[in-house]
Amino acid sequence: MDRDEHWMKLALELAKGGEGWVEPNPMVGCVVVCDGELISSGYHERFGGPHAEVHALRGLDAERLSRSTVYVTLEPCAHHGKTPPCVDLFLERPVRRVVVAMEDPFAQVSGRGISKLREARIEVNVGVSRAESRALNAPYLKRLETGLPWVIAKWAMSLDGAIATRTGDSKWISNALSRHQVHRLRSRVDAILVGSSTVLADDPMLTARLGPEEPIARRATRVVLDRRFRIGLESRLVRSARDVPVLVVVDRESTRDQAAKHRAFCEAGVEFLEFEPSLARDSRAGLERMLREVADRGGSNLLVEGGAEVLGGLFDAGLVDQVECYIGPKVIGGKGSLRAVAGMGMSEISKGFGFERVRWESLEGDLHFSGVLAKCPSETLGALE
Amino acid sequence: MDRDEHWMKLALELAKGGEGWVEPNPMVGCVVVCDGELISSGYHERFGGPHAEVHALRGLDAERLSRSTVYVTLEPCAHHGKTPPCVDLFLERPVRRVVVAMEDPFAQVSGRGISKLREARIEVNVGVSRAESRALNAPYLKRLETGLPWVIAKWAMSLDGAIATRTGDSKWISNALSRHQVHRLRSRVDAILVGSSTVLADDPMLTARLGPEEPIARRATRVVLDRRFRIGLESRLVRSARDVPVLVVVDRESTRDQAAKHRAFCEAGVEFLEFEPSLARDSRAGLERMLREVADRGGSNLLVEGGAEVLGGLFDAGLVDQVECYIGPKVIGGKGSLRAVAGMGMSEISKGFGFERVRWESLEGDLHFSGVLAKCPSETLGALE
Repeated sequence: MDRDEHWMKLALELAKGGEGWVEPNPMVGCVVVCDGELISSGYHERFGGPHAEVHALRGLDAERLSRSTVYVTLEPCAHHGKTPPCVDLFLERPVRRVVVAMEDPFAQVSGRGISKLREARIEVNVGVSRAESRALNAPYLKRLETGLPWVIAKWAMSLDGAIATRTGDSKWISNALSRHQVHRLRSRVDAILVGSSTVLADDPMLTARLGPEEPIARRATRVVLDRRFRIGLESRLVRSARDVPVLVVVDRESTRDQAAKHRAFCEAGVEFLEFEPSLARDSRAGLERMLREVADRGGSNLLVEGGAEVLGGLFDAGLVDQVECYIGPKVIGGKGSLRAVAGMGMSEISKGFGFERVRWESLEGDLHFSGVLAKCPSETLGALE
Repeated sequence: MDRDEHWMKLALELAKGGEGWVEPNPMVGCVVVCDGELISSGYHERFGGPHAEVHALRGLDAERLSRSTVYVTLEPCAHHGKTPPCVDLFLERPVRRVVVAMEDPFAQVSGRGISKLREARIEVNVGVSRAESRALNAPYLKRLETGLPWVIAKWAMSLDGAIATRTGDSKWISNALSRHQVHRLRSRVDAILVGSSTVLADDPMLTARLGPEEPIARRATRVVLDRRFRIGLESRLVRSARDVPVLVVVDRESTRDQAAKHRAFCEAGVEFLEFEPSLARDSRAGLERMLREVADRGGSNLLVEGGAEVLGGLFDAGLVDQVECYIGPKVIGGKGSLRAVAGMGMSEISKGFGFERVRWESLEGDLHFSGVLAKCPSETLGALE
């Protein structure tokens, strides 16, 4: 690894400190190196708060800065947003060199930050650790480029691939440490998606429950795919809708047919996304429309917690970006036990979804897989019903 | 760890060198320590060959031996078997002390080796690393104590718990390294069990195929559960029955009804284990009877390679001892894709089979789980059909 990559790696590590706190902004880290030594660093900590460069350059005098190289994981902004443009910092007190991991595709930046630095005769290198920077901000980039949030599919299964017994019991396949990690994941996403069958079977809360010392970055909207409007007013989701948002995705016909129930839900604070009947629940179009709604509301990350048909529909439609799978060392067995992913599925193994950035870790006996989908083998499949 | 445990651990490691080569004998390792230093070691290398003590004591003079402690993972034998009794070695040239991990429950030894040493006024300590020694020779001990072989269930599945797609394709869910490890496992077991559906669907060979430098310890008998005598004369198993044994487990009525086919199978070199119709294929009684046959033929280890109903039946009956599970980082999906373990299964997660001696290892992207069943939650179940 050369020196530039070394320092950029540090900036990328720092950037991760903003995960869950800065979205829908990108995570950005910045380090300042003078005469081969780190003299300052910072990262974008909170949405609406100072950018990474502001933190990193604060308090450094002009003379030292003129001898310094600044490493920043994303092109400095050139526009007035919630904060003034970061490029101005560099123009006020010029630095020797700026190393940028990648351009910011955000329309109001998009190369303008880099041009402005070059116009001021500051040396700029672009593309150091570009792949790592793109990976770090994959949800930000996906939302900008497609208008959809990053979709994280999560399940916990036994060693024989069961997520519940034939009677529906699923408590607990994974251990306390795995479940805690899921709560941490919930605490940083914008939306958590389940199907109505999961609500009817498990009556989950889908909130992030963490210890007193673990801050919760954001409260995810709980999204229920409930085409036929089956979930009940007494479900824990609905009863807690005033505290944590609930969005029910239904066919318009179903709410019309159950007008009183619909009214009661609205009074309980539940929001609705009503589809025309043609947008069937688990068709690619319906799923995409739902995802677009989440992104339009500012959502960068959506976590899918089942059930099997919802996950299957998303995989069939090629709409999953990342998988978090927890494997408990138990055998459940049973022809009738439940599985993680249903839908249509692949006809050939070679067409199955493969992964990159694969990480396996051991969690006190459980195994945790994390990976990003490598490709979308489009064997499939418009509407499934 | 104290000194005795330290040296016994080494002896246990050495013993493993005999795995696959010594069965139905136990694996045994032996080290000789004089004045705190290792001076010799050995292990039982081949069935019928010299015992560990013979290898370890060979060439050591009486004077040094009189100052030495000998660590042996199993009580020295006291009877004339294929070789003379090992205790005689110690009586001819007495050692200062013998440390034994565990007594040998084999009827012709069973404490007699230890008594003879003590009668000769040699100090004997028994029980150092007993648990590890019992774990090492669990198949040997199980066969002695129950008359059944050690049952190893193996499967390869995707990240969503599928062992094949909805069309039956399973090539390949696990990678080449995982599959190579399975061939190594096959090369050391006495029997490999599959159901007739697996033969009909995949037409497997079930032989150990290894590189030219990897010796094959033994050729497993391929056992097919085929109650209704469905597999064909043209299957690769049957065509290779002259080279590698095949045992077909059938209901007597089925062979009577297909007498010509039965004759052709016999002429092809296939052996039969014929059950009365009451011993249904996947009933606990039938499975036990089949296992007993394998043990009676000298088998210590039986590997089960599917399908789901065979594995399910064995789990339901509490007859599985060990699981080797390979997980490929792929998602297959599909309501109709196949899973590893069927049968009746557990009704509650808390009753699921748990494991001890759990080991997870990464194999070039695949994950390999190995564990020994901790208990048999006997929720279940006589006959399943």
